[in-house]
Amino acid sequence: MATVTLLADDELSDEARAVFDDIRATRKSDFVNNFWRALAHDPVTLKRTWESIKAVMGPGALDPKMKEMLYIAVSIAHGCSYCIHSHTASARAKGMSEAEFHELLAIVGMASETNRLVTALGVEVDAEYEVR
Amino acid sequence: MATVTLLADDELSDEARAVFDDIRATRKSDFVNNFWRALAHDPVTLKRTWESIKAVMGPGALDPKMKEMLYIAVSIAHGCSYCIHSHTASARAKGMSEAEFHELLAIVGMASETNRLVTALGVEVDAEYEVR
Amino acid sequence: MATVTLLADDELSDEARAVFDDIRATRKSDFVNNFWRALAHDPVTLKRTWESIKAVMGPGALDPKMKEMLYIAVSIAHGCSYCIHSHTASARAKGMSEAEFHELLAIVGMASETNRLVTALGVEVDAEYEVR
Amino acid sequence: MATVTLLADDELSDEARAVFDDIRATRKSDFVNNFWRALAHDPVTLKRTWESIKAVMGPGALDPKMKEMLYIAVSIAHGCSYCIHSHTASARAKGMSEAEFHELLAIVGMASETNRLVTALGVEVDAEYEVR
Amino acid sequence: MATVTLLADDELSDEARAVFDDIRATRKSDFVNNFWRALAHDPVTLKRTWESIKAVMGPGALDPKMKEMLYIAVSIAHGCSYCIHSHTASARAKGMSEAEFHELLAIVGMASETNRLVTALGVEVDAEYEVR
Amino acid sequence: MATVTLLADDELSDEARAVFDDIRATRKSDFVNNFWRALAHDPVTLKRTWESIKAVMGPGALDPKMKEMLYIAVSIAHGCSYCIHSHTASARAKGMSEAEFHELLAIVGMASETNRLVTALGVEVDAEYEVR
Repeated sequence: MATVTLLADDELSDEARAVFDDIRATRKSDFVNNFWRALAHDPVTLKRTWESIKAVMGPGALDPKMKEMLYIAVSIAHGCSYCIHSHTASARAKGMSEAEFHELLAIVGMASETNRLVTALGVEVDAEYEVR
Repeated sequence: MATVTLLADDELSDEARAVFDDIRATRKSDFVNNFWRALAHDPVTLKRTWESIKAVMGPGALDPKMKEMLYIAVSIAHGCSYCIHSHTASARAKGMSEAEFHELLAIVGMASETNRLVTALGVEVDAEYEVR
Repeated sequence: MATVTLLADDELSDEARAVFDDIRATRKSDFVNNFWRALAHDPVTLKRTWESIKAVMGPGALDPKMKEMLYIAVSIAHGCSYCIHSHTASARAKGMSEAEFHELLAIVGMASETNRLVTALGVEVDAEYEVR
Repeated sequence: MATVTLLADDELSDEARAVFDDIRATRKSDFVNNFWRALAHDPVTLKRTWESIKAVMGPGALDPKMKEMLYIAVSIAHGCSYCIHSHTASARAKGMSEAEFHELLAIVGMASETNRLVTALGVEVDAEYEVR
Repeated sequence: MATVTLLADDELSDEARAVFDDIRATRKSDFVNNFWRALAHDPVTLKRTWESIKAVMGPGALDPKMKEMLYIAVSIAHGCSYCIHSHTASARAKGMSEAEFHELLAIVGMASETNRLVTALGVEVDAEYEVR
Repeated sequence: MATVTLLADDELSDEARAVFDDIRATRKSDFVNNFWRALAHDPVTLKRTWESIKAVMGPGALDPKMKEMLYIAVSIAHGCSYCIHSHTASARAKGMSEAEFHELLAIVGMASETNRLVTALGVEVDAEYEVR
């Protein structure tokens, strides 16, 4: 089920096609995944989202594999199955080992457990953690 | 506000004190943060939680700084202010630079945005992402 | 998959049938969607939920289309795919244009991003926003 | 901080006062907590919410203490600190022991951990769990 | 869709097989559900998770049926469909009646509604709820 | 508590100052709220976020007041108190009446309730809602 159709390459507006061209050039692959085909109904949001993703996930202080793993962690906490699948595929393509993937899952699980315990107990932030 | 009191060292049961001793020995610091002082009312959960955290956050495939950053990412998505503060302090203590911290936040923000866009559009997982 | 069966019209209790009759009369349509057919196992909750929805979504200060769009926004943030689909259908039936739908999605996406950035940064509410 | 003021008894509309009277009569206590004082700006939602709560939390198949504990569990998962505090107070008033409270927290923590692990792994529901 | 394959009994490592043996012995059933078959790729997390679950869900202050119902409540709030289905099956197997299940759902629904109303209104915790 | 300090005008980098100048010019007000002062430590994310917000919340298919109300709805569901306060202030400044605010809250509450009921029941999307 979906709330919009997925646009095929020959259904794209010129603005959307330009974004797809950049996605293909940036990723050096002809494959454009469904998320962009759904978002293509709104070329303005498509362009802004792609350019933001490209900037945030591009070269920076953290290595690309690590960035994908952070993306996976957030997607799990938000329950976005599509995002978990797409970014797990990307992380593996960028070198994430199965041992690293399972360690990521164990961390997400433990963080989820302690996040809720802390919330339930209503723990006040220690003065030691204050930023001045 | 809290739903339990924070236990001082002289209010701990023997089982809880043993866990506090291990926390101090493991971290090589006398400081024990409020989360453990709230959890200490239940020595069984205190022990299980501490030992699980120690196992999950200990030496493994990912480096310690990276593990803390994944913990922060999940804590942000779950809205646990205490956890964000405590793990940000840990990540900084383990060498996270301000540039890395801000990159982490930018990734968490973008992931949150696309997680919701994908959910709203009801995008089906691409066959290319299938694990066989 | 479901945790209860969906009840057909001839499987309804008298109390549930009375609610279905009111749903049909209120909506001026014979179609009763799956949510009500699952909830019909509990006629008391079925009746209370339907009457609350009818009161909240009925004539008021906001126009019907806008109310459906607010319902969609919350359903996206809660990851309820069924609710997103049913209320998107209702919003379109009440006149939501595709441009309005895509603007709604862009707002939900940006709000999700800034919600998490604010939470990560631990920003204190400005005194200017205080209600006295 | 709040987005509305808290109404004192002498600031209530007649409709709101009638609800406060019923809250006091039902609870056999003169104390009316802040939630109702904030909601009192909207007597219609105040009345509907109070009557729904009274119906759902009143005598039924589950005992009152257990109902409060389920309320706490959901409030923890939603990160509602106020709700956690108010329903923990109610559960204790209805006989929840500290051992029961800590067991509740341990369950909420474990459920949070496995909820996220399952989501991360994308586990399909076993046919054995299907309801026919 | 899944991010890992489900392991059959003859694909298990010795460490994973030992955990499966304990799951079967503890539950007095040969059936091992998909969650454990997905988690089995990481025997360390499999063992820690199973032993934590066994400890938390085992004999204690709360009765087994009630524990499963708390697990369901958290799983609903986290939107984990698999967990809702598996723990609803467990709760029914442990004696949860349909009346109790529907009462649980009504409580989860009301808690969700008031959790968000309280958050929206920014209600401060009453001094009466303070733990000293 | 916060994880970064709030930057005063005289602590801004040139890039951050340029964004603050645009915020002031766009809003026709000298007041710059805390969110931007926290985000200013990362001028790149500050600039991208501000320009995205300006584009998404600027003139479009939906009226400005309605856009702020959608922002509030999402912020409530994500439990971002700061965002709820800042966007409620903006919505009121753009003409949201108290009756409209309370109607918004009632809708968010009902959506939260039915979102969780639907998730708990595992309701399949009706074919009638399919987009072709």
